[in-house]
Amino acid sequence: MRATIERVEAGLYEIPLAETLTDSMHGEMRAFEIVTARVTDSEGAEGVGYTFTCGRNGGAIHDILGREIAEIARGEEADRIERLWRKIWWATHYGGRGGPTVLALSAFDIALWDLAAKKAGAPLWRHLGGHEPRVKCYAGGIDLMLSADELIAQTERNLARGFRAIKMKVGRERLSEDVAKVAAMRDFLGDEFPLMLDANMKWTGDQAIRAARAFAPYDPFWLEEPCEPEDMAGHARVVAEGGVPVAIGENFRTLAEFRSFIAAGAVTFPEPDVTNCGGVTVFMKVAKLAEAFGLPVTSHGAHDFTVHLLAAAPNASYLEAHGFGLDKLIEHPLEIDDGFATAPERPGHGVVFDWRGLETLRRA
Amino acid sequence: MRATIERVEAGLYEIPLAETLTDSMHGEMRAFEIVTARVTDSEGAEGVGYTFTCGRNGGAIHDILGREIAEIARGEEADRIERLWRKIWWATHYGGRGGPTVLALSAFDIALWDLAAKKAGAPLWRHLGGHEPRVKCYAGGIDLMLSADELIAQTERNLARGFRAIKMKVGRERLSEDVAKVAAMRDFLGDEFPLMLDANMKWTGDQAIRAARAFAPYDPFWLEEPCEPEDMAGHARVVAEGGVPVAIGENFRTLAEFRSFIAAGAVTFPEPDVTNCGGVTVFMKVAKLAEAFGLPVTSHGAHDFTVHLLAAAPNASYLEAHGFGLDKLIEHPLEIDDGFATAPERPGHGVVFDWRGLETLRRA
Repeated sequence: MRATIERVEAGLYEIPLAETLTDSMHGEMRAFEIVTARVTDSEGAEGVGYTFTCGRNGGAIHDILGREIAEIARGEEADRIERLWRKIWWATHYGGRGGPTVLALSAFDIALWDLAAKKAGAPLWRHLGGHEPRVKCYAGGIDLMLSADELIAQTERNLARGFRAIKMKVGRERLSEDVAKVAAMRDFLGDEFPLMLDANMKWTGDQAIRAARAFAPYDPFWLEEPCEPEDMAGHARVVAEGGVPVAIGENFRTLAEFRSFIAAGAVTFPEPDVTNCGGVTVFMKVAKLAEAFGLPVTSHGAHDFTVHLLAAAPNASYLEAHGFGLDKLIEHPLEIDDGFATAPERPGHGVVFDWRGLETLRRA
Repeated sequence: MRATIERVEAGLYEIPLAETLTDSMHGEMRAFEIVTARVTDSEGAEGVGYTFTCGRNGGAIHDILGREIAEIARGEEADRIERLWRKIWWATHYGGRGGPTVLALSAFDIALWDLAAKKAGAPLWRHLGGHEPRVKCYAGGIDLMLSADELIAQTERNLARGFRAIKMKVGRERLSEDVAKVAAMRDFLGDEFPLMLDANMKWTGDQAIRAARAFAPYDPFWLEEPCEPEDMAGHARVVAEGGVPVAIGENFRTLAEFRSFIAAGAVTFPEPDVTNCGGVTVFMKVAKLAEAFGLPVTSHGAHDFTVHLLAAAPNASYLEAHGFGLDKLIEHPLEIDDGFATAPERPGHGVVFDWRGLETLRRA
């Protein structure tokens, strides 16, 4: 008799940000929402997952996870994750198939994989097929409004924290402002230092090509989300005509979106976020799809979970370290050492929340 | 000084179904959820919209509409609908961009157009550019599990109600069961009577082509959703190789999905649902996009609103009449006369809810 799912508990918390974050399309962000998933099986074992937003839709995610998914999953075998995933996908398809529904499913799926790895007595990265626990890591700044000087000061702090790769936002009103900041950063960092640029969906295809060509002399490691995620043709043109590699994925909610972009040559660095692409199940499919096409896989968000997924992928590129104050609420925050993060050997993903601390931030 | 938005109220109601409905992928449906949007402007005028689901995600939609959209929209000019639409799209993009977020946005957008037409003193179909108020209408059965005899009995009732076009479900376990029912229906209805078939995403591309070829001798008016909405290549193959027209759209949540399918030749009858595609704003863009490509536009769900939209479109094809017990809760249910529905001349969309009756079905 295999263990079955006894209970799925959802929690919604608001994490205030130490400083207001800015990018080109989301405007000012003052607090992130996280929605946690705690899955308890019939033997009393627990798996934990979460998803997050930059401030909206958290109530919807909480409702789907705590009401719909909890009901659909109850009594199912906990280690038939692929089956459960499809069951939830189709049960919530009308009114689902994207948006908050997939974020809720992602949190639940992460909890199932955590539970499965714990029961196997293995860290998640070994449970998923184990490649290399040391993963290159970059600091993902949300810093569009910083001046060049402020950006360099922030970069100095990131270097001191152990980072050896940096991402900065672009997409200011005038392209020349972006270019001046990129030039200052390249000058400060020196040749070959990996510098990623992130436009957060700001441009049309033609605007993005113009920007890519202006950035190219400064050797960006990639240009991220130059256009809206609906604009596959625009991204394919930036790859072909812009002269810089393109990363995209944090706003994709299906394996099919990754497949379409990869097959069309519209992305160089597929960048799934395990907390919104459909969980570990879909993240690893994207990683393997990218591998089959000779592409690396990078990541967005939730570095504590994701370090395991990249540590299991032979085609792993950089892990994004993307803290928003959550580090204070978990037991062993990820450490960066000379540019690398290391997937822990604790069972499961090894992320243990300070539930009491979280309680003070609960919204639902 | 233009009127601004004072208040957005969301209501979540559960409408029990008179009989259990079945299709190939959603299983058994016993109750639909509807989420209403009531928008009040600074002059006290009200616009009304709603969206619905076949049983899940209603709580999420209610939360997004009542919490997020209400907050984002407050104080905005009510008749700058395009601007408001984009503001909400981007404010809810992370964690949105599909799913319940777009259903909530659709309900809100319908309410804004209702309000705008009322203020203009015009019925919505004239406000949108007025073409022809009489719209061909078909009865959309959700009847996969009915036998051929039961299906014909249901069809006799639909003919008596005034319908002159019928849609039936396909996607039984064995294709031969589907074919036998389609053959019986064609035999009963006679040549040229429009008979639509709906597979609800059941098949792979190859399975769908096999089915389409088996149905072709019975002259289906269209084959609807033969494959998953993610499978554009599969749909394009059914159009090219299956020998029957293809309808799809009720599960698309963006204009971009319609654009991709239309531009790729993967759809013959684009079929947006005003309550889930992004509202009147997006429905009319799809209608015009289809027109530009020489295609008709048909519809899914919410016939009371949609009759106005097709009455405004010179390329209108059939309106789906898709009751799920809501007719009892509105003042002037749409009437069918010799195969046609007629867009009313009342201001706005003219749908007036029995709010007291709804109150007894309220969930949130």
